[in-house]
Amino acid sequence: MSGNKAVAYKGPGVVEVIDVAYPTFELKDGPGVNPANVGRKVPHGVILRTVATNICGSDQHMVRGRTTAPSDLVLGHEITGEVIEVGPDVEFIKVGDICSVPFNISCGRCRNCKERKTGICLNVNPDRPGSAYGYVDMGGWVGGQAEYVLVPYADWNLLKFPDRDQALEKMLDLTMLSDIFPTGFHGAVTAGVTVGSTVYIAGAGPVGLAAATSAHLLGAAVVIVGDMNASRLAQARTFGCETIDLSQGDPGSQIEQLLGVPEVDCAVDAVGFEAKGHGHGAGEAPATVLNSLMDITAAGGSMGIPGLYVTGDPGGIDAAAQKGALSLSLGTGWAKSLSFTTGQCPVMKYNRGLMMAILHDKVSIAKNVNAKAIPLMDAPRGYAEFDAGAATKYVLNPNGYLN
Amino acid sequence: MSGNKAVAYKGPGVVEVIDVAYPTFELKDGPGVNPANVGRKVPHGVILRTVATNICGSDQHMVRGRTTAPSDLVLGHEITGEVIEVGPDVEFIKVGDICSVPFNISCGRCRNCKERKTGICLNVNPDRPGSAYGYVDMGGWVGGQAEYVLVPYADWNLLKFPDRDQALEKMLDLTMLSDIFPTGFHGAVTAGVTVGSTVYIAGAGPVGLAAATSAHLLGAAVVIVGDMNASRLAQARTFGCETIDLSQGDPGSQIEQLLGVPEVDCAVDAVGFEAKGHGHGAGEAPATVLNSLMDITAAGGSMGIPGLYVTGDPGGIDAAAQKGALSLSLGTGWAKSLSFTTGQCPVMKYNRGLMMAILHDKVSIAKNVNAKAIPLMDAPRGYAEFDAGAATKYVLNPNGYLN
Amino acid sequence: MSGNKAVAYKGPGVVEVIDVAYPTFELKDGPGVNPANVGRKVPHGVILRTVATNICGSDQHMVRGRTTAPSDLVLGHEITGEVIEVGPDVEFIKVGDICSVPFNISCGRCRNCKERKTGICLNVNPDRPGSAYGYVDMGGWVGGQAEYVLVPYADWNLLKFPDRDQALEKMLDLTMLSDIFPTGFHGAVTAGVTVGSTVYIAGAGPVGLAAATSAHLLGAAVVIVGDMNASRLAQARTFGCETIDLSQGDPGSQIEQLLGVPEVDCAVDAVGFEAKGHGHGAGEAPATVLNSLMDITAAGGSMGIPGLYVTGDPGGIDAAAQKGALSLSLGTGWAKSLSFTTGQCPVMKYNRGLMMAILHDKVSIAKNVNAKAIPLMDAPRGYAEFDAGAATKYVLNPNGYLN
Amino acid sequence: MSGNKAVAYKGPGVVEVIDVAYPTFELKDGPGVNPANVGRKVPHGVILRTVATNICGSDQHMVRGRTTAPSDLVLGHEITGEVIEVGPDVEFIKVGDICSVPFNISCGRCRNCKERKTGICLNVNPDRPGSAYGYVDMGGWVGGQAEYVLVPYADWNLLKFPDRDQALEKMLDLTMLSDIFPTGFHGAVTAGVTVGSTVYIAGAGPVGLAAATSAHLLGAAVVIVGDMNASRLAQARTFGCETIDLSQGDPGSQIEQLLGVPEVDCAVDAVGFEAKGHGHGAGEAPATVLNSLMDITAAGGSMGIPGLYVTGDPGGIDAAAQKGALSLSLGTGWAKSLSFTTGQCPVMKYNRGLMMAILHDKVSIAKNVNAKAIPLMDAPRGYAEFDAGAATKYVLNPNGYLN
Repeated sequence: MSGNKAVAYKGPGVVEVIDVAYPTFELKDGPGVNPANVGRKVPHGVILRTVATNICGSDQHMVRGRTTAPSDLVLGHEITGEVIEVGPDVEFIKVGDICSVPFNISCGRCRNCKERKTGICLNVNPDRPGSAYGYVDMGGWVGGQAEYVLVPYADWNLLKFPDRDQALEKMLDLTMLSDIFPTGFHGAVTAGVTVGSTVYIAGAGPVGLAAATSAHLLGAAVVIVGDMNASRLAQARTFGCETIDLSQGDPGSQIEQLLGVPEVDCAVDAVGFEAKGHGHGAGEAPATVLNSLMDITAAGGSMGIPGLYVTGDPGGIDAAAQKGALSLSLGTGWAKSLSFTTGQCPVMKYNRGLMMAILHDKVSIAKNVNAKAIPLMDAPRGYAEFDAGAATKYVLNPNGYLN
Repeated sequence: MSGNKAVAYKGPGVVEVIDVAYPTFELKDGPGVNPANVGRKVPHGVILRTVATNICGSDQHMVRGRTTAPSDLVLGHEITGEVIEVGPDVEFIKVGDICSVPFNISCGRCRNCKERKTGICLNVNPDRPGSAYGYVDMGGWVGGQAEYVLVPYADWNLLKFPDRDQALEKMLDLTMLSDIFPTGFHGAVTAGVTVGSTVYIAGAGPVGLAAATSAHLLGAAVVIVGDMNASRLAQARTFGCETIDLSQGDPGSQIEQLLGVPEVDCAVDAVGFEAKGHGHGAGEAPATVLNSLMDITAAGGSMGIPGLYVTGDPGGIDAAAQKGALSLSLGTGWAKSLSFTTGQCPVMKYNRGLMMAILHDKVSIAKNVNAKAIPLMDAPRGYAEFDAGAATKYVLNPNGYLN
Repeated sequence: MSGNKAVAYKGPGVVEVIDVAYPTFELKDGPGVNPANVGRKVPHGVILRTVATNICGSDQHMVRGRTTAPSDLVLGHEITGEVIEVGPDVEFIKVGDICSVPFNISCGRCRNCKERKTGICLNVNPDRPGSAYGYVDMGGWVGGQAEYVLVPYADWNLLKFPDRDQALEKMLDLTMLSDIFPTGFHGAVTAGVTVGSTVYIAGAGPVGLAAATSAHLLGAAVVIVGDMNASRLAQARTFGCETIDLSQGDPGSQIEQLLGVPEVDCAVDAVGFEAKGHGHGAGEAPATVLNSLMDITAAGGSMGIPGLYVTGDPGGIDAAAQKGALSLSLGTGWAKSLSFTTGQCPVMKYNRGLMMAILHDKVSIAKNVNAKAIPLMDAPRGYAEFDAGAATKYVLNPNGYLN
Repeated sequence: MSGNKAVAYKGPGVVEVIDVAYPTFELKDGPGVNPANVGRKVPHGVILRTVATNICGSDQHMVRGRTTAPSDLVLGHEITGEVIEVGPDVEFIKVGDICSVPFNISCGRCRNCKERKTGICLNVNPDRPGSAYGYVDMGGWVGGQAEYVLVPYADWNLLKFPDRDQALEKMLDLTMLSDIFPTGFHGAVTAGVTVGSTVYIAGAGPVGLAAATSAHLLGAAVVIVGDMNASRLAQARTFGCETIDLSQGDPGSQIEQLLGVPEVDCAVDAVGFEAKGHGHGAGEAPATVLNSLMDITAAGGSMGIPGLYVTGDPGGIDAAAQKGALSLSLGTGWAKSLSFTTGQCPVMKYNRGLMMAILHDKVSIAKNVNAKAIPLMDAPRGYAEFDAGAATKYVLNPNGYLN
């Protein structure tokens, strides 16, 4: 067990599978590890043999060179694995358990964790509240697009699947519990989606499709997804969504054709700061989605904003964008009494319920996001195809569980 | 328009279709009308030509002679109709609108209505908060199992369907919005049903089946329905419910066979005070359902109690039951930190969202409760078959809209 | 009763007391009345003899010439009065009742009203959801800084005080129920203030002081108010608030001195779009408050935004401001998982509870905002002193009730 | 450090201070320890030197002989202490910290803890969900009315006070955070108490007084406390409560004299199963409080039930009471759409906010419950005086911190 192959960021546009150290119960120095975290003991952790680990749109921000991620950063925060070693402080998780890992790392011992706000744990990232595996400026916890990965605070963080065989059989669905399914669900919940709602979701990438799936699961009457990517829109239509082609312009009039009014009850931003303007050939325009959603959300509605907005974007289109400032028509939102919820999804609030929905065949998240398992070695191709707009959620299969 | 045929209670076990007065914008004296309501002006009301009006399990309490309902009381609180006359104070509802009538009558002007608690309106029933059409001790508002019916506070109470043709086409579903669908939904919501829940529903009558439908719509992972009536249980299985035959005994062990544990997250009492004991040949035992639900609800769970419990039941099995007292194992509930929600469903909180779910084909309530339209004149047969345990929801069709 | 003296906007910086028509049960044409509202019948209304009517900060936006308000618009949306005539459709409100009028006009019959969202009623303003008395672009309902005023949908809108003598005795407190007390309370509630919270309130004008009062009433541990106006800060200190002088710079370091950390749990924007930059001599900078609040709100916190943001501000400092666009550091908020609630306060959600708190001496809102009654004829002076920064809430006394 | 004096139950009516073992990081066999818990390792625990530990009304159930508590059971679940040893798995709590211990023991690692339901933790009590120190049938964790006590899962369970000196100065207040203040607060919160509520609290013992304090803190307009003990009622009046002498009969008419109506918005049962009937000389009647609260809670209201109800009461007045069954007029509650919340308070949901309120002088819980520190050796006297009805909350002072 001395080896550990892992997907690493090498530089803008380049990812490679490299050899890294097999994890131990300590956070060692390495690319992107916060000095204050170096040498941190993790007796409360477990080592997982990775069963499935997905490529995420937020990984792409790093890979596109839009962040300060260092070379050789091991990527991957969407992790499901089999426990193969447990630290001495682990009491309830056992070797052999198949578990989902929430992408937010949290301690289960700080004020925020005790309030279920695990996306902003105070004890895992010396820089600020909140952390994630394999992500720049998140404390330096090693990513999970690898054969093996260390998960700290395992009794708290891990969601154990009740039955091993059932879990492996439904793994392409269950692997979505580590991030995109709860993240999309959080977007829908914070947008106020409930039985009978009309919902608009900006973005038909995996998070957008997960939000659309969630809106259906929450009983929405109509779920409309907008994007400029025809194949992703086609994917949305496979599970009962209406779609809007944003290369044709703003969504309002197309919503009106569908609903009779140019407004919806609830809106989700599943795009974030790398938004483009609407209409044919529009360039990057980071406030587009939020301003558009304020236009098409009915008075009294809510906007869920799981799409990532950053405090600094060196590659931003102008000085304002580079420091993370957006020109927002807040007056429009204020006149309509809108509410806005931002931030990382606190995965642990939702993953158990969504697991139950998967295990009892209430939802087909893998099918809806078009999950596709590929070998770990093919990760570079997966990143490239995903970046090129494939309507596919790439699931890496480092240890052959998915064969 | 001088005539108005209506279904009336004549005495224990007997209902008849009789001729009553065509309604005017005044609450006139008649069987069961509270003296304080006699002569009440209703300029805010409308007169509906009934499109659909259903027989309800709570009507059966009266028909079985378990209440002090007077002879010739016109029955019916599940009403959908076409507006044919509007009072002078009605501003937004128009002649020709097809509307659902919440069974709770409410004024839209008291503290409780302003707080959305329309099941306990302070201004419509001189005896106590809360009212309903065609029901004993509810103020005397005339029932709607008739060709025509007066609906007060129409701008407030009525839910207008957006499109007439669409409404008539889906009328067997939409007619369930007046009572059982929201009532079942309220049971599920107050039981805490959410995405991934395991749910047990006591009673497979129409409200139980509506609660089961609602639990599915809310994303429950597993919905289990218990009853002693085999055909009703078969009906529950038609839409993805698990079922438990209570003539075989308490539900705990059967739940354990289904779930691996003898407990559920959420429980709904869709039976009420006329409960029978579990097991073969058990007699009436009014506390059975509540005590059983405390046993099988997991710690931290909630119980929704839409099933009716009364303050006095002259036909009760013993002195305690006759004054509405039940012997409840509250210690069991307390040790598990259970919560309990009782009372009439405030229909207006839910009917619009459920209408949207019906209109956009998210739910098939008519199919799930096995709705069946019959002529108004056949109401006595409907009452009898329903009382005999038919797995059918009887919808009266007084004016031929449902043909 | 043929006369009716009223405070009118005459032009930038000028208000005058003029003679206007005594109200009738119809919305007649006049300055600022939306054509679609002209001739609207109001049989559901009452005519009030004004007991108290306050000058509001949002009136100042019009008076400063920051809006398109027409000359002779009668001002005033903070109204308490005695009912002297009731329309034919009014059933529960009676002549002689002393009532508080929510500044939002609402119908009690539309979807939003039924959902308690009375700040965005769909039936009272032809231009958009939501309305108010005496305000530009709000449908044209005549203002209440007058001897007499028409209140539509009176059974729904009015909050009747239980006892006339008690009401008159506490009128300087109760008059705050029409707007600023619920508005400040809504700010505090939507900021998540609860028992033990640390709270920062931007702005020590009447709404800010009402929000601070509300935060105390909700059990906040520490309430900090920031402003540049020394006398308003002194006023805040009279009832247990900590204060921050923003002319000394951003609030973070001053908060740290008070709390040991530079952050609070909850933040309220009681300033809105006419914000100034922080520090000595700073000019108008409309995004200052919101960006500052994102800085000093702890991760996981919420921001209540009762301060008004507009869709168009002809007098704005630049082109972006003139169309209501703000440069917001949303990335900062997103990284902290902040939530934001904007819009008019739905007064009816809160006014009854706050009335109870006043009547039972739980809160001294009049003292806290330094309420001062002045004659109607002195309204111009009140507007001027308030605009100059007096730490006073001016209450007009058109009919001598407050003597 | 070889000794450890502790208060132990010896038999009905008898408590004594005895010598017990100094705690180690293991749960050893002893009186009342569940066999499945014997030998349980507690590396996640800390050993506290007790600063303050209170006598609780629920201890009295055991001391009165109403349970199966064994002789030599060390009592005490209301514990505040100084950390003197930390187990190897404790990461954030340090030696020297002064901390409050929630009376519910919870693991921070099970589903219920992750959902903040720490009163029904699944991992600490082999018999059922939920545990407490020094209590019969709760797993056998040793009580804290002692010089030293072991607290498991210390990073999760303990609430650290921010400043040692400040904590010691306010210790008579802060010691109430371990149980009665959150418990009373939970009662008030689950009864729906909010700004402006009218509240009735049954029972003026320490929990009742804490509930009354909480109701005031939550902004209630009127707080009414009912009891038969004149000195406890006098104590309630010292902090602004209205009081009702239940030896005069049912509370309804006395409430009507206070409020003008015989009903309140919210009701709290701070009595539990050892209730007596109302009126002079009434005997034990376990359903009295709940039935009375259903009578006097207004339609739409809620009842918080922190008072303990048990599954078995060998000393109950009749066969029904002995198995924990109560004759409840549920029909009355159902007709009013009441809700009920039972169970142990999940202390961790509230203790941090209440600590903040204490530290910032928003509330004087020690004064309100008449806290009185006595030496550990005087515990038998404290039990006796408390049982005799003293309007005093007894705080034991085992190590002299309170001198």
